[in-house]
Amino acid sequence: MRVAMMGSGGDAPGMNPAIKRFVEVAFEMGHEPYFIYDGLEGLIDGKISKAHYKDVAGIIHRGGAIIGSSRSKRWYEQRYRKEAYENLAKEGIEAILVMGGDGSFRAMDVFRKEYDVGFIGIPTTIDNDIYGTDLCLGVDTALNVIRDAVDKIRDTASTFARAFVIETMGRECGYLAAVSAITSGAEVCVIPEVDFDKALATKILRQEIAHGRRYIIAIVAEGTKRTQEIASWLEKDIGMETRVTVLGHIQRGGNPSVKDRLLGFGFAVEALEALARGEKGRVVVYKNGKFSTISLSEALKPYVIDEDILSMLHFLD
Amino acid sequence: MRVAMMGSGGDAPGMNPAIKRFVEVAFEMGHEPYFIYDGLEGLIDGKISKAHYKDVAGIIHRGGAIIGSSRSKRWYEQRYRKEAYENLAKEGIEAILVMGGDGSFRAMDVFRKEYDVGFIGIPTTIDNDIYGTDLCLGVDTALNVIRDAVDKIRDTASTFARAFVIETMGRECGYLAAVSAITSGAEVCVIPEVDFDKALATKILRQEIAHGRRYIIAIVAEGTKRTQEIASWLEKDIGMETRVTVLGHIQRGGNPSVKDRLLGFGFAVEALEALARGEKGRVVVYKNGKFSTISLSEALKPYVIDEDILSMLHFLD
Amino acid sequence: MRVAMMGSGGDAPGMNPAIKRFVEVAFEMGHEPYFIYDGLEGLIDGKISKAHYKDVAGIIHRGGAIIGSSRSKRWYEQRYRKEAYENLAKEGIEAILVMGGDGSFRAMDVFRKEYDVGFIGIPTTIDNDIYGTDLCLGVDTALNVIRDAVDKIRDTASTFARAFVIETMGRECGYLAAVSAITSGAEVCVIPEVDFDKALATKILRQEIAHGRRYIIAIVAEGTKRTQEIASWLEKDIGMETRVTVLGHIQRGGNPSVKDRLLGFGFAVEALEALARGEKGRVVVYKNGKFSTISLSEALKPYVIDEDILSMLHFLD
Amino acid sequence: MRVAMMGSGGDAPGMNPAIKRFVEVAFEMGHEPYFIYDGLEGLIDGKISKAHYKDVAGIIHRGGAIIGSSRSKRWYEQRYRKEAYENLAKEGIEAILVMGGDGSFRAMDVFRKEYDVGFIGIPTTIDNDIYGTDLCLGVDTALNVIRDAVDKIRDTASTFARAFVIETMGRECGYLAAVSAITSGAEVCVIPEVDFDKALATKILRQEIAHGRRYIIAIVAEGTKRTQEIASWLEKDIGMETRVTVLGHIQRGGNPSVKDRLLGFGFAVEALEALARGEKGRVVVYKNGKFSTISLSEALKPYVIDEDILSMLHFLD
Repeated sequence: MRVAMMGSGGDAPGMNPAIKRFVEVAFEMGHEPYFIYDGLEGLIDGKISKAHYKDVAGIIHRGGAIIGSSRSKRWYEQRYRKEAYENLAKEGIEAILVMGGDGSFRAMDVFRKEYDVGFIGIPTTIDNDIYGTDLCLGVDTALNVIRDAVDKIRDTASTFARAFVIETMGRECGYLAAVSAITSGAEVCVIPEVDFDKALATKILRQEIAHGRRYIIAIVAEGTKRTQEIASWLEKDIGMETRVTVLGHIQRGGNPSVKDRLLGFGFAVEALEALARGEKGRVVVYKNGKFSTISLSEALKPYVIDEDILSMLHFLD
Repeated sequence: MRVAMMGSGGDAPGMNPAIKRFVEVAFEMGHEPYFIYDGLEGLIDGKISKAHYKDVAGIIHRGGAIIGSSRSKRWYEQRYRKEAYENLAKEGIEAILVMGGDGSFRAMDVFRKEYDVGFIGIPTTIDNDIYGTDLCLGVDTALNVIRDAVDKIRDTASTFARAFVIETMGRECGYLAAVSAITSGAEVCVIPEVDFDKALATKILRQEIAHGRRYIIAIVAEGTKRTQEIASWLEKDIGMETRVTVLGHIQRGGNPSVKDRLLGFGFAVEALEALARGEKGRVVVYKNGKFSTISLSEALKPYVIDEDILSMLHFLD
Repeated sequence: MRVAMMGSGGDAPGMNPAIKRFVEVAFEMGHEPYFIYDGLEGLIDGKISKAHYKDVAGIIHRGGAIIGSSRSKRWYEQRYRKEAYENLAKEGIEAILVMGGDGSFRAMDVFRKEYDVGFIGIPTTIDNDIYGTDLCLGVDTALNVIRDAVDKIRDTASTFARAFVIETMGRECGYLAAVSAITSGAEVCVIPEVDFDKALATKILRQEIAHGRRYIIAIVAEGTKRTQEIASWLEKDIGMETRVTVLGHIQRGGNPSVKDRLLGFGFAVEALEALARGEKGRVVVYKNGKFSTISLSEALKPYVIDEDILSMLHFLD
Repeated sequence: MRVAMMGSGGDAPGMNPAIKRFVEVAFEMGHEPYFIYDGLEGLIDGKISKAHYKDVAGIIHRGGAIIGSSRSKRWYEQRYRKEAYENLAKEGIEAILVMGGDGSFRAMDVFRKEYDVGFIGIPTTIDNDIYGTDLCLGVDTALNVIRDAVDKIRDTASTFARAFVIETMGRECGYLAAVSAITSGAEVCVIPEVDFDKALATKILRQEIAHGRRYIIAIVAEGTKRTQEIASWLEKDIGMETRVTVLGHIQRGGNPSVKDRLLGFGFAVEALEALARGEKGRVVVYKNGKFSTISLSEALKPYVIDEDILSMLHFLD
């Protein structure tokens, strides 16, 4: 079988380990592995080539994805999807593994309903907003990048009587912010899923300051769009000189953690095995320590953040 | 209830997050938390004191354990265990949470059979050699420290035509070596659990060198005691100039990873909940993504390395 | 002699090594070392105490400053400076070493003209904007933090066809941005000192994109206040999807680099030796690999960025 | 002019930035830059090719050297040097920049006396054992790698009452060990240049242990061959359980620090400018913050470690 791997949507650390393992295991299973370069845009433009062992030598420790990725507006016009299909047909490619998030999965869903192309999704996004998987590829590395940043900021916090607001990624999902707040002991965490009880926080934090608290670290999920508001509140209502750091794309970068390498391996293997079992249009997941697949419609359900995580945050309504 | 936390045996990153969470949750549950300093030696010598919130402020990101740890020969004399018990009785402490490995659990097993002291073990060792838990506290950080070292060595490997032997910790367990080899793409991995097929490796590596392989990375578990032998083999039989690095205690150190912080939190909470359920003499485990407890006798079964991991290693018999 | 050390102004990695060395060498020279806590505010409020060896054990590798720091508005009222002087007189302190930037040095200049207090400044700011010294304390660590961030962002840049704007600190000084741009191979660098030739950059970058350039990294000094403008320009005129990262206070934090530890040591020793030579009201500097002192008025001259650095930047007017 | 760059001897972080800058500045000066791959062995075998901008894109942050390096026994036979010369003559190459240590410079000295080839040496070794330069390329990164390792080990030292012996590289030179000991506050440092007063150290350390010292960190330069002896001494005479870590090649690896990037740039530029001034058979150095050249015979003088560094070490004779 000819099977291709493609990146789609935002990139995430761990894609290269997944790509490497895909090539190795595809050969072991007797398949012919292919790469589609630059995501859906590349698929439309026919940037497809055979994958070789040498392409994936020495890539495990690199961030990003050697095959590139993209989002595509053209994809939503039928004629471009037709071009995409013809490119695959020309090469005799029967199935595609797609590393991406929900947008990418939806894009492939449209495609596979029109054309007979096997599709297996690999949940790949530092936002960790895919239903049915405990972890998406890239999340563990992103959390450790944020940890390192917060630890650095705490250094200067212990010197000055200051508040620091740190904005994390995550789109509409508060997972990154919440887990970072818990694991770095941040005093304040604001996420899209739950109301933040500012009145209560104001009362408690003022008391703590009266009793000697010297600094506050607040982690705010970008999806709340409340970064500046929280900074103003800390400055004016809580009365601490406040600084803002928007971590931005350093969260997507860097050498993948051991967990993300293992996750990349496991997702790639499970995806190939799902194809071998005759599955099409499914998404691989990592749930309770095991790899399996779920249907695309299940994977597209709205993500719900874990109650245990929420219970460890302060000042939530 | 008065409940104490103690470190025992080798230290591991993640102990401080566990200590912090223990204090917070013990207070929330209405207990009085205590610390036993410097492990079994400290328990014998009565180094016990009440724990306060302020003791655990700002410790999440520190390696090691603020309450110390030790191994103890005196413990195996009955009179010292009697002293230990009297120290606990004097403070009214009814239960102890012990962060340690199998040696520590055995030490406590002797104790609880003699005296009515509740004991919950928290599997804490970078060796990952405790039966019944997918991960011990400290393993994730240790794996990432090794990853960083191997990535650095690979840099110089790509410059020179050389072999590198990297010795990892793990006592009789090959987990650290095996997972490090898999996730860093090492060509050779030698662990205590499985025979390494040197004849096959010699044949294949010589072929690969003939076809252009420029370097070899070999990861050897300390428990095999074969580090020097593998280095000689690479130098003489494979014919590559070879260098050895013994990573040693950098593997136990450093800022705990996000996973080890979460694991430390989860273990501490599960241990306190087990006490609340009336459990005694059990060990908390993390299995398939969930926290639970197992009996001490089960936790002391011999650890068996996962077949999936072994299947990804080369040249095993 | 009784001599005190104080932090003032923004904090910077390397202050703790300087504090440690100050205490050690002060004792060796037969002085009595003191700490003033929390900067000028603490000096006004009499937060002064004797320094001991034990205070500085195990602090070399910590970011921030164990003695705190602050800016002070009260200082500019004479009555508070009088209180500060009386606090020093009460303890018999004859000289102060102040780690800070130009604002701190000006604050001390006012003071020493009114009262007979020896003052030696230690240029401490990641902005590197003090005249007469090649490096200020903290700059080397800050540059390496930025390097790490840019390397991470470059990972994702190599996956996507995108532009990234990274805002660095530095107040009115472009040193951090310029050196970071040079050493990380950024395509665009915008600093306060020199005009950025947008027309030229537009022309060249468009040509490069036409010839296959896939991404652009732009480093912008905060002092230009042009971060958003540059992002819009890259998005609209250059035509690349663009993302912004404001590194913020992670640049001030973290474990001081070896160079900053050596610099902290050297500055502390030179400051104590200057006092021993009878100097007052001077600033220690590190110039051409040597430590010496310059007068306060010289240190307050406007900083000029090195021509060699500017010559390596692109698109400057 | 056709001018080639070559690596020789042990590798060191910073070679890639030097290679990149060499290519850029050589083009700016109107030269034709070449690469000699795999050091002297490659020179003998004619592995020479033109250098292009694209070869050096995206390499600044990589450890090692993209052009490889080697040591060569064949070089000491005249007929191979003749082949080497003929390879250069065939390409019309008039001068070579060699990144290496004293062995490499000696190898080139033999060559340039036989053949009319310009040679400029770039001191490249983490050992920092070249006379006349304050820093060799790679030293700053190596020091920071050691710093990170010692900080990790100190974490576990603070948990246990233990001694740790850390062996650093440096061949016959104690620079790395000495500076690491100073900047990480190690209690013991043993280097080849100076006698270590074991009797005094025994007396003082025993006193300190009696007064509460819990751990000892000893840094030993590999050139002393005393690592095991010091470990035995700490275990038996000082009475602390002792562990040994041989850092090995992680010291040569990894992303070059900002200083090593700047140093690589500066060395490359000074080397090209020296050629432009008509110099041959000289070595570029970085002394008191400035780049210049010295004669080969001066560069081959024995390296002497700085007195200021020695004065900060304990227990030296």
